[in-house]
Amino acid sequence: MSSLSVPPPRCLQKPLTVPHRHMFGPGPSNVPPRILQAGANPVIGHMHPEIFQIMSDIRSGIQYLFQTHNPMTFAVSGTGHTAMECAIFNAVEAGDGVLVAVNGIWGERAAEVAERIGARVNTIAAPPGGCFTNTEIEQALSKHRPVLFFLAHGESSTGVLHPLDGIGPLCHKYDCLFLLDSVASVGGAPVCMDQQGIDIMYTGSQKVLNAPPGTAPISFSERACQKIFNRRTKPVSFFLDLSWLANYWGCDDKPSRMYHHTAPVSAFYALREGLAVLAEEGLESSWERHRKVAEYFHAGLERMGLKLFVPDKTARLPTVTTILAPQGYDWKEITAYVMKSHNLEISGGLGPTVGMVLRVGLMGGNSSQAKVDMVLAALRDALAHCHRSKV
Amino acid sequence: MSSLSVPPPRCLQKPLTVPHRHMFGPGPSNVPPRILQAGANPVIGHMHPEIFQIMSDIRSGIQYLFQTHNPMTFAVSGTGHTAMECAIFNAVEAGDGVLVAVNGIWGERAAEVAERIGARVNTIAAPPGGCFTNTEIEQALSKHRPVLFFLAHGESSTGVLHPLDGIGPLCHKYDCLFLLDSVASVGGAPVCMDQQGIDIMYTGSQKVLNAPPGTAPISFSERACQKIFNRRTKPVSFFLDLSWLANYWGCDDKPSRMYHHTAPVSAFYALREGLAVLAEEGLESSWERHRKVAEYFHAGLERMGLKLFVPDKTARLPTVTTILAPQGYDWKEITAYVMKSHNLEISGGLGPTVGMVLRVGLMGGNSSQAKVDMVLAALRDALAHCHRSKV
Repeated sequence: MSSLSVPPPRCLQKPLTVPHRHMFGPGPSNVPPRILQAGANPVIGHMHPEIFQIMSDIRSGIQYLFQTHNPMTFAVSGTGHTAMECAIFNAVEAGDGVLVAVNGIWGERAAEVAERIGARVNTIAAPPGGCFTNTEIEQALSKHRPVLFFLAHGESSTGVLHPLDGIGPLCHKYDCLFLLDSVASVGGAPVCMDQQGIDIMYTGSQKVLNAPPGTAPISFSERACQKIFNRRTKPVSFFLDLSWLANYWGCDDKPSRMYHHTAPVSAFYALREGLAVLAEEGLESSWERHRKVAEYFHAGLERMGLKLFVPDKTARLPTVTTILAPQGYDWKEITAYVMKSHNLEISGGLGPTVGMVLRVGLMGGNSSQAKVDMVLAALRDALAHCHRSKV
Repeated sequence: MSSLSVPPPRCLQKPLTVPHRHMFGPGPSNVPPRILQAGANPVIGHMHPEIFQIMSDIRSGIQYLFQTHNPMTFAVSGTGHTAMECAIFNAVEAGDGVLVAVNGIWGERAAEVAERIGARVNTIAAPPGGCFTNTEIEQALSKHRPVLFFLAHGESSTGVLHPLDGIGPLCHKYDCLFLLDSVASVGGAPVCMDQQGIDIMYTGSQKVLNAPPGTAPISFSERACQKIFNRRTKPVSFFLDLSWLANYWGCDDKPSRMYHHTAPVSAFYALREGLAVLAEEGLESSWERHRKVAEYFHAGLERMGLKLFVPDKTARLPTVTTILAPQGYDWKEITAYVMKSHNLEISGGLGPTVGMVLRVGLMGGNSSQAKVDMVLAALRDALAHCHRSKV
């Protein structure tokens, strides 16, 4: 007879079942069987030489994906949010000024992350769907003199791909580091970290890379490292402390590696495979494919009478498309209908775009004409069958 | 012709290969095929109803594993270190007093985590391999009046299983929360969170649960929640903020869930399967099996003339055994030999035990007489073939 006060839960007696589904939301994206199976390789130790080789391969893959020679390039053991905190926790000390460009949810979150560690945060704001001019950015840099400027390259909540040209040099003119969130964009839209003067950049594994969520590529420029390794105080997080992570990933020149944390090795296997898929196709082909597929998709939507949320064609994110919620319909009924009738995920808005848009993500292997046709057919069907709401 | 400055890395052209290996270090442990395959299920969205069901199953499984009725029970999207930071970041504000019991690396790390967020940290110290008496703990509680007391239940760096009886009530007598690191112990040694008055407890997925590393079960008592939800300041981390995580995991009574972060759903699948395996065997059977196998192992080691590092038999961790580094040998040669000749991982010391011990972990499915026999044979072989060092 058991003396335990909590019995074994009956729900765990049922076998795990997970449906197959077309993942056309803003991420995670469908994970190809090849990448799923890579993740199912046996778990070995986080300090075994084979893992160090895999980590080294991952670093090379990220340097290619980001187009950077930064030695300080690796993957955070966590999600995109962890990477955002890793960037800000290391680059910013309490009392430092941070300038955040807010034109969607990611700017809001970056501002919150910086505020929590005691940074003096200033923001510039653009309406959802809008961008910032370099003049606006320069005025704010000159006024606030921040140590760090945050911008989302792909604002997945609004569908905006922000132009990058000239922003890096502007930041450096004002002795400021340029932090770019490229979670939704990198691999699917051109960005060259070194050439464009980006000091810190991160992404997530589950977008264009088509790996499961749980690891987050990140890179720091020499300029960023200079600031970080001359801090007066330690970063608030031991787990995300760059000096530990640098050693753990073999990015420093110390002869041996110290145990820092137990890395999610299965997620590293899958991330390596996602990077290998991208390297096989080639970065420029991937950019070109995402651009063409997005144009084909956008034309199809307009032919159906749907309107895109981002007016400026050149500022449309090729990976995540925002569609104005069709007038006279309840957007929730549409997303529910395509899920139920077509086993297909598209989503509503997020943060400032809730209720305003539908969001469709076509990333990595999902960026193809065939998948576009599938989404268009599902939307056409939804518009024909969903109730016109009284709202 | 490409205009990219970083070419696709050649290392990624080689297919990923991962060796099979007996994982008898202090973790990660071998992951059974059943759990690996659970993790290879298709990735679906972090806000799909099926994931909410899986998360609910995980919560029930953790409540069983921890023997707790706490509604505030879930898994952190990260490793054991992330869970340690989640506990301390939420329970402690800058200026709060924290008391840390240091008898190995985990106490050292908890002290460092608390110091980084501006806590006033006091420690009590015991030599590696030693424990604390309740009198020592009470004296320190009474002197320092901390808001939180940290103790490692299973000190995997030293092989100590710390007694728990009476510590929870002592903490509460001094209006202090009791935080227990049960990473290396839970599931393999008795611990009942509610009954023993533990306010915050966490573990990792990769120990007794035999899932890949990357998720970390955690639970907070009502008393802990009272303190946390009446903080004057926000926790330093948005990603680990309990109020967000509580909603995300359906632990609060809000009608709907807000997007917080993109959960590592593949790791959740595997964690659920690990919890299901444990529930099938039953917690008490698992405790009993780990106890018996450890005793069998320890007897075998002593028959070989090897000495256990922890003198007090009752304070030996059944999951991770520390063996005094055999005199006259170079411990590194021994671990390298068994890896090379037997494809078997055992490790050296960690933190305060580096150079002093060998560590052997037999956790979850690896806790069996057959695996013990395999380790004993490998060690016997190593002692016969390794050079006696001149040190």
